Amino acid sequence: METKVNPHIFNADKKQGVYDAIYSRRDIRKEFLPDPIPQEMLLKLLDAAHHAGSVGFMQPWSFVVIDDLDIRKEVKASFETEHLRAAQNYEGSQKELYESFKLEGILESPINVCITCDSTRAGKHVIGRNSIPETDVYSTCCAIQNFWLAARAEGIGVGWVSILDNTKLKQLLHLPDSVTPIAYLCVGYVNHFSDQPLLEKAGWRKRLPLEELIHRNKWGNK
Amino acid sequence: METKVNPHIFNADKKQGVYDAIYSRRDIRKEFLPDPIPQEMLLKLLDAAHHAGSVGFMQPWSFVVIDDLDIRKEVKASFETEHLRAAQNYEGSQKELYESFKLEGILESPINVCITCDSTRAGKHVIGRNSIPETDVYSTCCAIQNFWLAARAEGIGVGWVSILDNTKLKQLLHLPDSVTPIAYLCVGYVNHFSDQPLLEKAGWRKRLPLEELIHRNKWGNK
Repeated sequence: METKVNPHIFNADKKQGVYDAIYSRRDIRKEFLPDPIPQEMLLKLLDAAHHAGSVGFMQPWSFVVIDDLDIRKEVKASFETEHLRAAQNYEGSQKELYESFKLEGILESPINVCITCDSTRAGKHVIGRNSIPETDVYSTCCAIQNFWLAARAEGIGVGWVSILDNTKLKQLLHLPDSVTPIAYLCVGYVNHFSDQPLLEKAGWRKRLPLEELIHRNKWGNK
Repeated sequence: METKVNPHIFNADKKQGVYDAIYSRRDIRKEFLPDPIPQEMLLKLLDAAHHAGSVGFMQPWSFVVIDDLDIRKEVKASFETEHLRAAQNYEGSQKELYESFKLEGILESPINVCITCDSTRAGKHVIGRNSIPETDVYSTCCAIQNFWLAARAEGIGVGWVSILDNTKLKQLLHLPDSVTPIAYLCVGYVNHFSDQPLLEKAGWRKRLPLEELIHRNKWGNK
């Protein structure tokens, strides 16, 4: 291939910024500081989320920003119930290790953000969503990752709490029938971003070698 | 709030890199160049995907890299069938507009990458996946967005083809039962990144005002 200049490549610093956000993003649980997130900063992160691509330009996401402590206490209660239930899956030293993990920062973070998906957002027929209807949820997850990476660049931590009863959460947040909570995020400044994911650091599970995850043309063909 | 220096904030250039990737990322269909993607570059993008967070450090994703033209022709045939089927949802001028859209670059791009999710990747019990089992798919979508943003920083375009029959795709790529194709991506250098999404530019659908998507504490409370 002849050497050509690709005018669309970012300069070295900007490119590094993208990789730094990707590689140093963490799921934050115990490192939250109580300092409030200024409103314009929160809007900046939400606007970054809002600029994810979406199937049929559907933009199926909404953002419920929760600062009310009573609501957060009820969400925390749902976490406690689900966490106890999940602990029953483990035994002995694995159970002890499981129970030692701090898995949410619902009350310690200054705000929580629930990112939802409305499957009816763009009407009955959405371009590109006829064959795979789940693409509305996939788009919403792309928005979540935008939020997470922009927050990292701003020195803000995000922790995704997935140990929740979504039926309960829908009730607490008064979500309409067509709206599904996808991510319940704790958001705040932090005292620390760990150099590794918690579960990797704790020896719960190793990072898989990338080459084992790549197949050429057909599954199993390395 | 007193002024404190947050040591975790990126410097201005790196931060701008993250926002530039988020705001200038596009879904590419007709702008692909045939130039090959060097293998080390593809590995760089896949490694960025692999460093998304995942529920229980599950890393449920795999990457099927497709350069074989015969397979891509079969994928294209599935697209054609599904595209014709979807076109029946529209009438008159809307149908004409729909049919005028170029919605994939399966053959024009030098490689396709199918990003999959294996729901059995980390065994029966996955931390954080007991209450909301769909979190494996959500994690995979975060990896997809990492791939997309890293590609943008490298001046590489990505187009997500969602007009496909996933049952057919699973057969073509020989995916095991527990493995679901989540995103079928066309990947290549491009001659142009549009300043707006195609469907916004074509007047098919407007970008929603961000403030309409934000609720405080409870749905409907703006």
